[in-house]
Amino acid sequence: MITLFLIGIGTGNPDHLTAEAAKAIGEADLILIPLKGEDKADLAGLRLDICKRWVTRPEARIETFALPVRDPATPDYLTRVSDWHDSIAQIWQDRIRAHLDAGGGTRIALLVWGDPSLYDSTLRIAERVSHALPLRLRVIPGITAIQALCAAHAIPLNDLASAVVITTGRNLRRDGWPPGAQTVVVMLDSGGAFCTLGAADVSIWWGAYLGLPEQMLISGPLTGVSAQIVTERARARERHGWIMDIYLLRKPVAAP
Amino acid sequence: MITLFLIGIGTGNPDHLTAEAAKAIGEADLILIPLKGEDKADLAGLRLDICKRWVTRPEARIETFALPVRDPATPDYLTRVSDWHDSIAQIWQDRIRAHLDAGGGTRIALLVWGDPSLYDSTLRIAERVSHALPLRLRVIPGITAIQALCAAHAIPLNDLASAVVITTGRNLRRDGWPPGAQTVVVMLDSGGAFCTLGAADVSIWWGAYLGLPEQMLISGPLTGVSAQIVTERARARERHGWIMDIYLLRKPVAAP
Ligand SMILES: C[S@@+](CC[C@H](N)C(=O)[O-])C[C@H]1O[C@@H](n2cnc3c(N)ncnc32)[C@H](O)[C@@H]1O
Ligand SMILES: C[S@@+](CC[C@H](N)C(=O)[O-])C[C@H]1O[C@@H](n2cnc3c(N)ncnc32)[C@H](O)[C@@H]1O
Repeated sequence: MITLFLIGIGTGNPDHLTAEAAKAIGEADLILIPLKGEDKADLAGLRLDICKRWVTRPEARIETFALPVRDPATPDYLTRVSDWHDSIAQIWQDRIRAHLDAGGGTRIALLVWGDPSLYDSTLRIAERVSHALPLRLRVIPGITAIQALCAAHAIPLNDLASAVVITTGRNLRRDGWPPGAQTVVVMLDSGGAFCTLGAADVSIWWGAYLGLPEQMLISGPLTGVSAQIVTERARARERHGWIMDIYLLRKPVAAP
Repeated sequence: MITLFLIGIGTGNPDHLTAEAAKAIGEADLILIPLKGEDKADLAGLRLDICKRWVTRPEARIETFALPVRDPATPDYLTRVSDWHDSIAQIWQDRIRAHLDAGGGTRIALLVWGDPSLYDSTLRIAERVSHALPLRLRVIPGITAIQALCAAHAIPLNDLASAVVITTGRNLRRDGWPPGAQTVVVMLDSGGAFCTLGAADVSIWWGAYLGLPEQMLISGPLTGVSAQIVTERARARERHGWIMDIYLLRKPVAAP
């Protein structure tokens, strides 16, 4: 029986790591680290730094692998993503098999950006691998970009007793403001989906590179700061070669 | 200038603590710990255990205080909560003043269950205190009950590319299934708000005492397991004198 640890490592600040995550990394026999292409080299570097800090057993192995890319020839989005997950699962499987055949131990770890439950494919890929190999799955939670955003701005996620919608830039563009929502958190935005809203009474708290030395924060009334966010985002992306950003949008509570 | 640290400590498992949180606890001059009445003594104990583990400086002070209760004579919910926050802020203020007058250092820490941004009043109380004392606020994120729930069940929070609604039992009872939602996380439920839904195609993942030795997990089709959850919840509450539970409800993705 293999134990597969999916370990949330937080979103940039190595001190986001929990004691539980540090322990699991320290006890792993094989750690698999995906490489996502030049632009995000910083992030692979961060993963390797975390391993260097917490892996102490000399027999532990750290292996990187090139993350396959999605096939743009597949027109349907969900099929494209599903095929992509299949090919990543195949790589994990091959690496795990080779490691075990070489006499390696059965504790396998994958480090996941933020928390493994939030807009991340690792659980779906592990599910596929579990059809081919005898796996016990252990998920270790990590600090998400949502928490990093709220902490950096020192704001609550929810208004008192009220609900929160977490969604993607794609959904916000397609469907507009979620019906009935007062607070909306937007992730995975390719850039400026909030510009499509035009809501006069919305405030925004925006953050990029949260927890990293490059961290940027902007907040204010959406109509007042949206142009600034779009400009600074484009500039930062140009400068660093990549960007990860997230924002919280809030409408005022209706007067009772 | 006082620095007030609001430190997320996770939701029961002391190993949820991040390195950043451990460091902030270790550097605090005064740590304030609320006591919430007999039934949740376990939780105050957990906070004290965390302090014992991470506070090493002999001059650091740990003070508990009795959390005031909300005044049931105030009919309006929001007013009742707001008055309550005022009286807690007054206690913080008095304790901080007395500590400084006695020559104590300016790093004050409050340990917050889970993450300070999620259904928690600490940020709103700190805001009040900042009107009376010169405060710099630093929020340190912690693992939320949502992440503990998803990790324990090894499930993703969101379906692929889809949105998530986080809400309370009170809202779910009053408003029913949030319009357009596919995944709904319910917190602060006084018990069985899901029974009011009657949705035939909903699945539930329920968890109580997450991260604690008493942890309970139940999942399945809502119609199949809702009676079991209600019974086991009541029994556990009876046995321990208190309960904290959370659940995720999901409808299947509509066929394309
Ligand atoms: C594929 S999702 C992964 C989310 C991650 N599992 C988590 O728990 O935060 C990537 C998205 O998360 C957000 N994100 C992750 N890290 C971030 C960071 N350091 N700063 C800002 N946004 C971040 C961005 O919205 C980005 O598009
Ligand atoms: C006042 S809120 C605080 C939430 C906390 N700040 C967080 O980040 O999870 C309390 C609610 O959180 C959930 N909760 C907190 N800890 C929990 C635990 N250990 N197990 C199950 N639910 C928990 C329950 O829904 C409970 O009603």
